[in-house]
Amino acid sequence: MFQSTDSCRSAVPLKHARYWDIPGPFVLDSGEELHEVRVCYETFGTLNADRSNAVYICHALSGNSHVTRHNEKDDLGWWEGMVGPGKPIDTDKYFVICSNILGGCSGTTGPSNVNPDTGRRYGSSFPKVTVQDMTALQYRLVTEKLGIKRLLALVGGSLGGFNALDWAVRFPDSTASTLAIATGPCMSSQAMAFDVVGRNAIQSDPDFADGDYYDRETGPETGLKLARMLAHITYLSRDSMKRKFDPERNCGRDVLSLFETKFAVSSYLAYQGEKFADRFDANCYVTITNAIDYFELGVDPEANRKTKEFDRVQLLGQAIAESTCRWLIVSFTSDWLFDESQSRELVGAALRSDKRVTYCNIACDGGHDSFLLEEPIKGNYGALVGAFLRSVAESAGIAGAHSAQPIQTPRIETAESNNRIDYDRIVELIGEDESVLDLGCGTGDLLLRLRRSGAQRRLVGVDLSEEYVLSCVERGLDVIHADLDKGLRGFSDQQFDYVVLSKTLQTVRNVVYLLDEMLRVGRRAIVSFPNFGYHRYRTQLEMFGTAPQTDLRDETHWYNTADVRFLTIADFRELCDTKGYKIHQFIALDTWKGRVVNEEEANVEADMAVVVLSR
Amino acid sequence: MFQSTDSCRSAVPLKHARYWDIPGPFVLDSGEELHEVRVCYETFGTLNADRSNAVYICHALSGNSHVTRHNEKDDLGWWEGMVGPGKPIDTDKYFVICSNILGGCSGTTGPSNVNPDTGRRYGSSFPKVTVQDMTALQYRLVTEKLGIKRLLALVGGSLGGFNALDWAVRFPDSTASTLAIATGPCMSSQAMAFDVVGRNAIQSDPDFADGDYYDRETGPETGLKLARMLAHITYLSRDSMKRKFDPERNCGRDVLSLFETKFAVSSYLAYQGEKFADRFDANCYVTITNAIDYFELGVDPEANRKTKEFDRVQLLGQAIAESTCRWLIVSFTSDWLFDESQSRELVGAALRSDKRVTYCNIACDGGHDSFLLEEPIKGNYGALVGAFLRSVAESAGIAGAHSAQPIQTPRIETAESNNRIDYDRIVELIGEDESVLDLGCGTGDLLLRLRRSGAQRRLVGVDLSEEYVLSCVERGLDVIHADLDKGLRGFSDQQFDYVVLSKTLQTVRNVVYLLDEMLRVGRRAIVSFPNFGYHRYRTQLEMFGTAPQTDLRDETHWYNTADVRFLTIADFRELCDTKGYKIHQFIALDTWKGRVVNEEEANVEADMAVVVLSR
Repeated sequence: MFQSTDSCRSAVPLKHARYWDIPGPFVLDSGEELHEVRVCYETFGTLNADRSNAVYICHALSGNSHVTRHNEKDDLGWWEGMVGPGKPIDTDKYFVICSNILGGCSGTTGPSNVNPDTGRRYGSSFPKVTVQDMTALQYRLVTEKLGIKRLLALVGGSLGGFNALDWAVRFPDSTASTLAIATGPCMSSQAMAFDVVGRNAIQSDPDFADGDYYDRETGPETGLKLARMLAHITYLSRDSMKRKFDPERNCGRDVLSLFETKFAVSSYLAYQGEKFADRFDANCYVTITNAIDYFELGVDPEANRKTKEFDRVQLLGQAIAESTCRWLIVSFTSDWLFDESQSRELVGAALRSDKRVTYCNIACDGGHDSFLLEEPIKGNYGALVGAFLRSVAESAGIAGAHSAQPIQTPRIETAESNNRIDYDRIVELIGEDESVLDLGCGTGDLLLRLRRSGAQRRLVGVDLSEEYVLSCVERGLDVIHADLDKGLRGFSDQQFDYVVLSKTLQTVRNVVYLLDEMLRVGRRAIVSFPNFGYHRYRTQLEMFGTAPQTDLRDETHWYNTADVRFLTIADFRELCDTKGYKIHQFIALDTWKGRVVNEEEANVEADMAVVVLSR
Repeated sequence: MFQSTDSCRSAVPLKHARYWDIPGPFVLDSGEELHEVRVCYETFGTLNADRSNAVYICHALSGNSHVTRHNEKDDLGWWEGMVGPGKPIDTDKYFVICSNILGGCSGTTGPSNVNPDTGRRYGSSFPKVTVQDMTALQYRLVTEKLGIKRLLALVGGSLGGFNALDWAVRFPDSTASTLAIATGPCMSSQAMAFDVVGRNAIQSDPDFADGDYYDRETGPETGLKLARMLAHITYLSRDSMKRKFDPERNCGRDVLSLFETKFAVSSYLAYQGEKFADRFDANCYVTITNAIDYFELGVDPEANRKTKEFDRVQLLGQAIAESTCRWLIVSFTSDWLFDESQSRELVGAALRSDKRVTYCNIACDGGHDSFLLEEPIKGNYGALVGAFLRSVAESAGIAGAHSAQPIQTPRIETAESNNRIDYDRIVELIGEDESVLDLGCGTGDLLLRLRRSGAQRRLVGVDLSEEYVLSCVERGLDVIHADLDKGLRGFSDQQFDYVVLSKTLQTVRNVVYLLDEMLRVGRRAIVSFPNFGYHRYRTQLEMFGTAPQTDLRDETHWYNTADVRFLTIADFRELCDTKGYKIHQFIALDTWKGRVVNEEEANVEADMAVVVLSR
């Protein structure tokens, strides 16, 4: 009774696709049933004996199961740079699975397929499908058909990110890690608005015929092309469009299209629209974008329709709290379809429920499409995904997961890291099972020391540098890419035993705001800072008439140091008095001599102080 | 032979409109002719005897001549907050004119009007119109019909900004000032792309009938509504949409529309689309957006089609160089249709050709529509426009232009401004006819002193604060809103005799970059900075063990001072040595004692230095 793939009007033939007809009917989220459902999928690499090396990839709106080539003669996949032998998602090590989504037009059941009950294509009779329905089908393929109980990783970008998020919170024990890329808890209202106009273009196309256009001579290709042209703009960035089109602004190319082609940007959009209509179906586009727009992690849209008294932050938190996996959240600086703030909502929810989470906002001007682009994949983005997977695989004890580069070596040389006497003190101050948030964690040296000394305690780093974030991930640490001058918004009250700020206070502009935030998030704060009251500094000013410097590297001077705050121990004590911070412990160090200085002499004899604070 | 306005299919009747039938045919930019052209316009306020108080307002895409009410019973205009008695563009003082653009549907000749040659509506036979054509007609109305030789101000936002820019460079002596708001030298490629999709939606609507739909039962309303819905998204900002729609995301309102209304954002867009189609014509929309997309100040699109070797920056510069007016350029932080960078291109071009220009990037989250919104108009934006106009009117000697608030008083109290001994030195250093760029100009105290002491010399300030920019404008100064840490990109090499940085060096992170920029833009740089080698500061560190502070206000401490760089005179001298800056003059001051300190003792005895540098 099942249709062959080529009966699907717009599908591109997938040469290596396999098919699974699910046993019995498929009950949708809405309560409706699809009597027969076929899943079309592809796999890459080899499943190991204990079925522990599987990575499921969730594709985006216009993607499909053909993630990468199966062999050299095969057609290129949509994520070649990311997936394949020796690539970040390494098919030499991992068994990669991708199935086409429910409601699409690439082989899995969708509105352009024949309804076995009627013998005619579904069209308008295809039921409403949600992201949850898509995920449920993906989950069933992996567990029932492929017999994999627990994935090593679940990976998804954009809509695929919705599927990955939904999966991780609803089937929590089925994955060891989730990589949610260029996505968020839901579409922004702005992004939805573009979908709305796209659907309106399709559904108001006279050839749409309420969705039952399959037996007609002409389908709603015009509407579909308009929707695609519009969506395509949202996948690029302002800057990437400027670079691409500004120089030849008035030079439209010859494109076989009835649409406008007179400007460079017109002919490009016309080409994108025409190309898309060759491989996609209008009903599928409407079905999938509806699912996308209805999705909101943790929120029931029907309940929201009845009441506006919705605490979305709390509901998102409750959803993420159900997950048990490690998280990697990635956004891109120029992505305005899913911007940084949407990823940070996910990160915040994961942090608040004490999940292991790493976040990075990758600098790339490619817009939403950045997650698919070769350049960032060859750079920090690909390295991050690879390192995170290696770290998860290593924890899972998968043979060969260990990279050639030993994971404990930082990728960035830091001259100081082995000579941080303040680290010794800080490590001593913290109990074996106490949790630590390290602000300005750099390559993760302090966190690594704490990991070595302590048991399974919670350790999280925060740093502003993409490179440092990557370095921490390569060392198996959880780290959040963030600017301390913007505070610790993602973290909840009293979440950590200690919040540490080591030799970073003097680089922060909003000192009081950050200290307040540290004492909000941590039971206690540990702050180490250089003391400008130290006798050598005083002598330097007195004898040589030059301003003291704490960073002694040759290339660092008053005009280019990262330091922007200059304080003595006395200054810091006065601030604590003024703001009512309690000083629990005070350790003054002369790091030149490698000794502890007594409190009375500290402001002259110590070049560094380590202070434990509480409210 | 002229049609009455109500023969225009979509026009809203404008009760106070007047009409002018231009004598003879109107020759378009393309060489084509319109045999008869009628201009529909409105005026507000009273033209003074010497015809010197006229302000022409150029409306945007969907605007019209009805800027504001003529009386209390009149319909609301589109810029009520900005224009009217006692408003920033004060109709008690100024005679305000606005005419409907050529190619539109509000009374001035456009494609929906009857072609006198054929007796039928133009439709597809309406010729291509450019921004230049629209401007030419506006200019003729003002000069020929109203007999005004020179406007006090030319004001335009968005497309209106294009008209104002075009006018100012092509008819330079016809305006004393130009206010270009939420606009740029051209559309960005991203913004054009949205127009392209909008036009495609209209022109692919089967009811468009190639533009000759007027005699048919149905016009291309569906396409027009799609175009409007899409454009409407670009007028809002991500944040304003979030605020407006997120809480009731799934609560669509009842809107009489065939478009989707199920989400809050869908029903809003459907409403906007439906409403627009009642008052606008599809051919006009296509005609006007084509003109918008073809416009590029200083560039001939046809020439660009033949060669890609275009130096657009140079061409823009050449265009602006033709202008003779004072400029006010305003952008809004959340406007992504015309973003800050586009305004900065205009500002840069004006600066490079030594025009008098002021620029401000107003903080407002309303997106492109910010320029129309009441809130920013009631805030700094409205105040800025009002102050700029007063300043221009005062220069033009218009009676009553002077505001109640004396223009010389800064709106912000600065404790220090009367006690700046370094200003005295700086003023002495600069010759009577030498030009000065003052970086971190604050409320403009130094510039005012220079204005008083010197003749008609060129004085420009730069500041990061919107408030300070406004304060400078209220004092009649030219000022550029900019972040010094991003350099002086808009300024050209050796443009000023002196670039001054007074008591600001210590607040700048990228010290060397900024000094290099100063010496690029100025023949000489004057830098004044606090000396941390001053004996009182040394004593403070030595005796009290607390870090020195230059800002002695009670609320300023090491943790919240604007200072981020700490240097002594010796440090600064060493930097000059290292970087090869020549020290021409060196003045050390003890501002406590109000005396000059000799050079040998300076590093100990002076708390401030004033240094003149060159390459």
